[in-house]
Amino acid sequence: MFEQYFSERIKNTPSSFIREILKVTQNHEIISFAGGLPNPISFPQEELKISMNRIAEKYGAKIYQYSTTAGLNSLREFIVDRYKKLWKMNITIENVIITTGSQQALDLIGKVFINDGDNILVEKPSYLGLLQAFCMYRANFIPTKLNEDGLDIEDLKNNLKLYKPKLAYLIPNFQNPTGLTYTKDNRNKVFQEIRDENLILIQDDPYGELRFEDGERIPYIGLNETEKNIYLGSFSKIVTPGMRLGYIIANKEIIKMIETAKQASDLHSNIFGQYLISDYLYNNDLDKHIEKIKKLYKTQANAMVKSMEEYFPKNIKYTHPKGGMFTWVTLPEGSDVLKLFDKAIEKKVAFVPGHPFYVKPDKVNTLRLNYTNADEQTIETGIKRLAESINEI
Amino acid sequence: MFEQYFSERIKNTPSSFIREILKVTQNHEIISFAGGLPNPISFPQEELKISMNRIAEKYGAKIYQYSTTAGLNSLREFIVDRYKKLWKMNITIENVIITTGSQQALDLIGKVFINDGDNILVEKPSYLGLLQAFCMYRANFIPTKLNEDGLDIEDLKNNLKLYKPKLAYLIPNFQNPTGLTYTKDNRNKVFQEIRDENLILIQDDPYGELRFEDGERIPYIGLNETEKNIYLGSFSKIVTPGMRLGYIIANKEIIKMIETAKQASDLHSNIFGQYLISDYLYNNDLDKHIEKIKKLYKTQANAMVKSMEEYFPKNIKYTHPKGGMFTWVTLPEGSDVLKLFDKAIEKKVAFVPGHPFYVKPDKVNTLRLNYTNADEQTIETGIKRLAESINEI
Repeated sequence: MFEQYFSERIKNTPSSFIREILKVTQNHEIISFAGGLPNPISFPQEELKISMNRIAEKYGAKIYQYSTTAGLNSLREFIVDRYKKLWKMNITIENVIITTGSQQALDLIGKVFINDGDNILVEKPSYLGLLQAFCMYRANFIPTKLNEDGLDIEDLKNNLKLYKPKLAYLIPNFQNPTGLTYTKDNRNKVFQEIRDENLILIQDDPYGELRFEDGERIPYIGLNETEKNIYLGSFSKIVTPGMRLGYIIANKEIIKMIETAKQASDLHSNIFGQYLISDYLYNNDLDKHIEKIKKLYKTQANAMVKSMEEYFPKNIKYTHPKGGMFTWVTLPEGSDVLKLFDKAIEKKVAFVPGHPFYVKPDKVNTLRLNYTNADEQTIETGIKRLAESINEI
Repeated sequence: MFEQYFSERIKNTPSSFIREILKVTQNHEIISFAGGLPNPISFPQEELKISMNRIAEKYGAKIYQYSTTAGLNSLREFIVDRYKKLWKMNITIENVIITTGSQQALDLIGKVFINDGDNILVEKPSYLGLLQAFCMYRANFIPTKLNEDGLDIEDLKNNLKLYKPKLAYLIPNFQNPTGLTYTKDNRNKVFQEIRDENLILIQDDPYGELRFEDGERIPYIGLNETEKNIYLGSFSKIVTPGMRLGYIIANKEIIKMIETAKQASDLHSNIFGQYLISDYLYNNDLDKHIEKIKKLYKTQANAMVKSMEEYFPKNIKYTHPKGGMFTWVTLPEGSDVLKLFDKAIEKKVAFVPGHPFYVKPDKVNTLRLNYTNADEQTIETGIKRLAESINEI
């Protein structure tokens, strides 16, 4: 009835594949690896309860009033201090803006940078939330191959030369959906290729803190070597996603433009949540809390990989995540993952078919598995069912 | 340095006039009528503290986890019940989506409906947050004259005929910035003009609950007579703006599209805040709480009008608000309100010059005054200073 009124951008946005999937998986007998939810262990509930009562006492009406678009200064300062400590970044709070979750960071970046048809380089596969957000600004995506060690340098070179993309969006740590991490060497090579291009690089890093295998944190691509980097971070995977609090770190000129866009988008992010998270962060040991999450996710990831090794046919490939929340499975060339999906639902196990992570999904033979919301026994049972499904298609 | 990268839409968005104004008014000696903040009396702090502890007990991890894009069902049900009771609307929760404040509602409507250059009918003057939000989608605004009794019907007729606007955005109750309210008769006339047009009417109503003068609530334009109406509401002025919770009521087909846009914008609104406000609403008497706010605002508005009557020169016009938070002052034709602003700051009183409320601000002789954040004595002193400033320019 309203077709004639809707904008071109919304008519060209694919409706959410994942939501449809999740409807099917509501059935309680189904073991679901389809979600992307952090384990509730990552919410420090007792500490947050103490904090909420403390901020109510301490700040009174302020936690309920309108506030500034850029975000609560104490929270921005916490981020500045942490990135200075971890990465020796030379930043102040003017380089930081609080967003309504990382998803809003993507929307605001789209608003501020993308004109209709602008070329935007993304990983193949890429984060579906990014594809949705930039689709609204009518981006022309340039998918670039992802390998075990990071971005495919030849494909990157070709795409830079052919399309001169304005922005690139990468998730270098424990990528969603693949679980892959760029090696240090790959990051250096990527930076060599892009450093002289007219390209702004967005590095989204919701999972960086969740490295559960040994080995040091690997520095961001071009860290401290360029002003053309934008870093995204989030409290969703380490404190709570329900508060919808993420942030952008970038050059002040960029942050100022994003602030204008944010003012037009939601004025400011929930200020109660900002006071709450800030109070929690200053009064608790975040690193100790993160250790707890990492320990659990490591157990779960190992259980999933071990089960896949044991039960999957040998021609099935999968990633070995060193952190984050996902692993990525590749069926033999020519397999139809949607056929597998139907069979798997029959056998009461669910996953996300690869489709929503591709710009042009076509003959998809990949799928994403989440391991953070099931115990080891359930993971084994689920993977066994999935292996049986694979054998039967 | 980044000029070449920014999008056309953001380069064409005026930077916020109000933020600049507010910087000047930080000085504590200045009496400021420039803000737009609700009085803290409207935040039921004690009750919210009880509610936050109750939801933490009752729902545990759920108040911190990811949630659905459309919003918390119990909150949507509260809205359905209230609009059914007040307006006999025939709606279900599928007609309601929760937004990150009303500002996000405007952004999402822009996303879902506006193509570059679409004609959008707005009041003259209009709400500046709407102008900013739709500017991002490159709307072509069609300002339509506002009179004491509502929209100017002749101007409306002409604009409908000439520009065939796709959307109209109106604030029929206690408008921001003017404080004006459309009469019942004017609403009927407006509906007669638009009912057969291909036009979707957005009625934004953040202040409707704050009618402090006698007289019944006046029904919305075209209430229950068309599917082409979109209603916006908010908890910002009656419970708390800091939680950033507003809502849209519309036809299900429209709500579904807005849901897709919201998913790409911030996934969902802060779920903790939704549980909190929902718990507050079901366990307290909202109407009794609103009475308290209205009583205070009535006293403040009356103090301001009385002072203006007493101290302003007779050639100064101003509106007599029957609700809401603002009054609108018109200086004699040809006066320069920016000159008055400088003089007023000298005399330590501040207001918002009319500029940001116009699509094409030019020779502006109007200004907005807010009365909700000062006591009667302060209001009188501030208006006296303003009157002196007027006399001296």
